Amino acid sequence: MERETPEAAPPLTFLRGEEASSGSSSARARFERLIRRVQAEVCAALEAVEEGSGGGGVVFREDAWTRPGGGGGISRVLQGGRVFEKAAVNVSVVYGVMPPDAYRAARPDAAAGAEKAGPVPFFAAGVSSVIHPNNPFAPTLHFNYRYFETEAPQDAPGAPRQWWFGGGTDLTPSYIIEEDIKHFHSVQKQACDKFDPTFYPRFKKWCDDYFHVKHRGERRGVGGIFFDDLSDHDQETLLDFVTDCAASVIPAYIPMDPIIECRKDTPFTEDHRAWQQLRRGRYVEFNLVYDRGTTFGLKTGGRIESILVSLPLTARWEYDHKPQEGTEEWKLLDVCINPKEWI
Amino acid sequence: MERETPEAAPPLTFLRGEEASSGSSSARARFERLIRRVQAEVCAALEAVEEGSGGGGVVFREDAWTRPGGGGGISRVLQGGRVFEKAAVNVSVVYGVMPPDAYRAARPDAAAGAEKAGPVPFFAAGVSSVIHPNNPFAPTLHFNYRYFETEAPQDAPGAPRQWWFGGGTDLTPSYIIEEDIKHFHSVQKQACDKFDPTFYPRFKKWCDDYFHVKHRGERRGVGGIFFDDLSDHDQETLLDFVTDCAASVIPAYIPMDPIIECRKDTPFTEDHRAWQQLRRGRYVEFNLVYDRGTTFGLKTGGRIESILVSLPLTARWEYDHKPQEGTEEWKLLDVCINPKEWI
Repeated sequence: MERETPEAAPPLTFLRGEEASSGSSSARARFERLIRRVQAEVCAALEAVEEGSGGGGVVFREDAWTRPGGGGGISRVLQGGRVFEKAAVNVSVVYGVMPPDAYRAARPDAAAGAEKAGPVPFFAAGVSSVIHPNNPFAPTLHFNYRYFETEAPQDAPGAPRQWWFGGGTDLTPSYIIEEDIKHFHSVQKQACDKFDPTFYPRFKKWCDDYFHVKHRGERRGVGGIFFDDLSDHDQETLLDFVTDCAASVIPAYIPMDPIIECRKDTPFTEDHRAWQQLRRGRYVEFNLVYDRGTTFGLKTGGRIESILVSLPLTARWEYDHKPQEGTEEWKLLDVCINPKEWI
Repeated sequence: MERETPEAAPPLTFLRGEEASSGSSSARARFERLIRRVQAEVCAALEAVEEGSGGGGVVFREDAWTRPGGGGGISRVLQGGRVFEKAAVNVSVVYGVMPPDAYRAARPDAAAGAEKAGPVPFFAAGVSSVIHPNNPFAPTLHFNYRYFETEAPQDAPGAPRQWWFGGGTDLTPSYIIEEDIKHFHSVQKQACDKFDPTFYPRFKKWCDDYFHVKHRGERRGVGGIFFDDLSDHDQETLLDFVTDCAASVIPAYIPMDPIIECRKDTPFTEDHRAWQQLRRGRYVEFNLVYDRGTTFGLKTGGRIESILVSLPLTARWEYDHKPQEGTEEWKLLDVCINPKEWI
């Protein structure tokens, strides 16, 4: 019933051939090492939180899959933990040739000289993760960092090679706890400011614009940073930048002034839980209706379970639910409708 | 936070002007009476089931809404019943002019002579309903019947008036109970056979093809009947046909050899419930990713709560869940992957 068979052997050995010495390939190799390290570190950090909460038996399971056209990935999923209802950290590295249409869709601004060109060799690698905790006061976290390269089209060798980075980290709480959101945004801003003072304001706004549940007129959550097609600095600088962004995930979310360590045991009622479940429903709406990675994946026959692992374990839709003005639930909805500056 | 304001006064008085005496308007008036009667009857039947189960306090709430361009609708929703987790029966009647693009999208086969024409006056009316029971052995039911008319484009008065019917009734169980599914399909077939012996096989297949969760390779459920753009019999005959289809909803679902009356009290375990919730997740995937009414409604700014009332109260996504071969859960999945002939 599955299109692709998970394999027992985990390592991305099919990537080894990529680790050559040209500028391009060394960026690929460095990015590949980055995403695998991030996957290992984030999973270890979440398992440590489970362990510290007496839920030590719950660990990540791992599925490796290969893509017939070239490449593959490793999905790591923890489900039914004491702290985390469902958490997934996926890496994938895919390469091959893409039809000219897909190339133009991926890079509308690029390839003016390649308009009538044939198939385009490409390389894409990324890490993506969604973490849904049980406690309604502990927010959902999502992050994704990816690197993309295209070669000159096969029959137009003069056209330039293209590369770019994309990604971001964003937070989706069910309740507004200002200090948590400020902490989260501050860590994102620190990672950005080291490289370019325009990054945080630009990527913060990009995030608010991207995670827009249009039919609700709401953002999915309280944002963070998001960017795409990023190639306006040199490759090394941007590699350093996404490395720092990825390294900020755990300090922004788990231990310090901390979101998860503080909120995972906050007492809550059935009403808090029902509201969390309603907000999870909005999360599902965004991911299935708008999210580019998800909708693209569904249409192009990727591994379904790896694509839809971002969906929460449970969600809820109540007809015409409207929180009463002034309540905590109303405050959350208000900032989702009117994104605000947190820091 | 809502785009359209529910109104206190329920009757569709804004439609009265439509009840003129031409052939077209009498079809409109007859169809309008039909959908309002169906709404009243189905809601009364479901309330009677609740009443008979000691859940008499739970009744349908009603919201009327108007569409700025012309027309409006009435949503009736019952939530949190003893038998029904969430049930909705909506009627809407909308009219106005639509841009030529929308006209061509709605009727790609029509209007060869109207290709360069201006805005097209249209009239659309329908009843749609989704009923999600609590008990995992009681299936979800969906039905929708609609009538559409377009006039000649305003600047091409020679082009013909178009009209057509669409709709269907389909069943989404979490467990296969053959006698229930056979009963359900038999009632659909009876309604079809009275009019045309080709209807049931044609519309049964159309239903299997339409309710296809492509990225899963699964149908949403065990089908029923579905058709669209139906205008290949005279208008009176097709009005009689959809009237009979709509009249078959209650006998197919509620009382007789019955699905709901029998299954609403079947004992079940947490595992049965979890499987039902997983299947509800697939229901959400179909509705948000593929369903034409839903995706069209989200893009064109209809009343969101009336569009998304089809979503279940709760749903669940477990990573890479695969029922064991031979189990009851596996049997359901198997018929969703390989639609079968039930009668």
